[in-house]
Amino acid sequence: MTIEKALVVGTGLIGTSVALALREKGVAVFLSDVDTEAARLAQVLGAGREWAGEGVDLAVIAVPPHLVGDRLADLQKQGAARVYTDVASVKADPIADAERLGCDLASYVPGHPLAGRERSGPAAARAELFSGRPWALCPGPETDAEALRRVRELVSLCGATAVVVGAGEHDSAVALVSHAPHVVASAVAASLASGDDVALGLAGQGLRDVTRIAAGDPLLWRRILSGNTRPVAGVLERIAADLAAAASALRSGDLDEVTDLLRRGVDGHGRIPGQRGGSLPGRNPAGSPGR
Amino acid sequence: MTIEKALVVGTGLIGTSVALALREKGVAVFLSDVDTEAARLAQVLGAGREWAGEGVDLAVIAVPPHLVGDRLADLQKQGAARVYTDVASVKADPIADAERLGCDLASYVPGHPLAGRERSGPAAARAELFSGRPWALCPGPETDAEALRRVRELVSLCGATAVVVGAGEHDSAVALVSHAPHVVASAVAASLASGDDVALGLAGQGLRDVTRIAAGDPLLWRRILSGNTRPVAGVLERIAADLAAAASALRSGDLDEVTDLLRRGVDGHGRIPGQRGGSLPGRNPAGSPGR
Repeated sequence: MTIEKALVVGTGLIGTSVALALREKGVAVFLSDVDTEAARLAQVLGAGREWAGEGVDLAVIAVPPHLVGDRLADLQKQGAARVYTDVASVKADPIADAERLGCDLASYVPGHPLAGRERSGPAAARAELFSGRPWALCPGPETDAEALRRVRELVSLCGATAVVVGAGEHDSAVALVSHAPHVVASAVAASLASGDDVALGLAGQGLRDVTRIAAGDPLLWRRILSGNTRPVAGVLERIAADLAAAASALRSGDLDEVTDLLRRGVDGHGRIPGQRGGSLPGRNPAGSPGR
Repeated sequence: MTIEKALVVGTGLIGTSVALALREKGVAVFLSDVDTEAARLAQVLGAGREWAGEGVDLAVIAVPPHLVGDRLADLQKQGAARVYTDVASVKADPIADAERLGCDLASYVPGHPLAGRERSGPAAARAELFSGRPWALCPGPETDAEALRRVRELVSLCGATAVVVGAGEHDSAVALVSHAPHVVASAVAASLASGDDVALGLAGQGLRDVTRIAAGDPLLWRRILSGNTRPVAGVLERIAADLAAAASALRSGDLDEVTDLLRRGVDGHGRIPGQRGGSLPGRNPAGSPGR
């Protein structure tokens, strides 16, 4: 093992979960957060000790996307770690910030674990949050091979699977599979405002599943979306056009066009890895919302 | 118990599940389906015996919405049952059909169990499909009180909760909480066609939840939507407008408007009964799609 000491900067849901996962593997973890209350709570939860400037093998920067570059620059100035990574859900902007701030790009491996919960903060953290999940890594041409190897080890210690991908490609991908679906779930949930209690009382598991992620923190998601505006807008425009066309077809009684959308949905759903056309193990078997 | 003998007409997912639930409660169940293979499979699965015209206390008509009126008229002509109900996911059209065909509306209690799965057919049926779920009943001014009482007993035997609601109100409600969300899930799933395998490899639980119901049978859903076109179109238009506005706001960098949609989504999500702002018991704790 080459990661014996790690620093986690930012003790929110993701940072604290990384810290807990590393602690379980016997790594010495130091914690730092400008929110001293969050840092203290993470310590109490067993995520690690307060950081007092100790040098570490790896620093995990788990702060909002727009702060990653600044924090990386600070840490590198202090010589805090041999290797740095971050966990922000967009990658092109933080990398551009790091370049602009003159950071050492050889020791920085941009990363993004595809995991989360609707709840945020250290109290929601769990060591197994990343278990079996993809974890994107976006090394650039300057990235040191040894740095990448060490961050791959972090991913492995957290039980996740590393997926190496270009930063731009990553951002387009998460716009498609994560950011735009979040906005769509929010729009479906927002539409419920027009329903009365009887209508809401007829809600089934399907509606609960479609809207579950809409419970996420709006300010956190604002930050995520603000770092990925154009790719997300592109996906939303296509979905909005499909829905407007479906509505228009329904009004005119042209069910063929709607059926085509439903068929394309079945095909697209089948492209998600691990789908088997049925319920996941341990999930509620009562599935579709209507019948 | 007043339901000692029941007839289930249509041995698909819902009909066979009703039959299995009634069998578990000791009700004698007869089965009928124009698809003799489906009927035989339901019998083999223990859902009941083949119907040979025996008179029953209650007939459950579990056929597609556009066939409910015809089937009701046939059964009433034969004097098959004392009370009739159906399970179609729209209510105004089947009731209008029944009126047009001169059916006896006193003995007919239109119904709709809010339960289902992505899979269809008798092999997917289970006795507990309706357990804890709402089951809409739409009696009209002509409906006999004793008929309603008997169908309430059916709902209770299936472990569901009866919700009495007007037919038009029901159809608007399910457009909002079931039919429109299904089309939206299909549109999100359809958008995945533009993603490459790397993008799809970054899919998390959030995307799986948002798109799960999109795996439903397109032809079944075409029939459902064709009986509820205007209410569904109205909901889809509002959602499409919200998404188009969000895309436009993202392109112009106006994150306030997007944040407002996210906030409305949190509020709307909170209106769904039984939501507690977190994961449901036994569900994957790793929730949000992105971080």
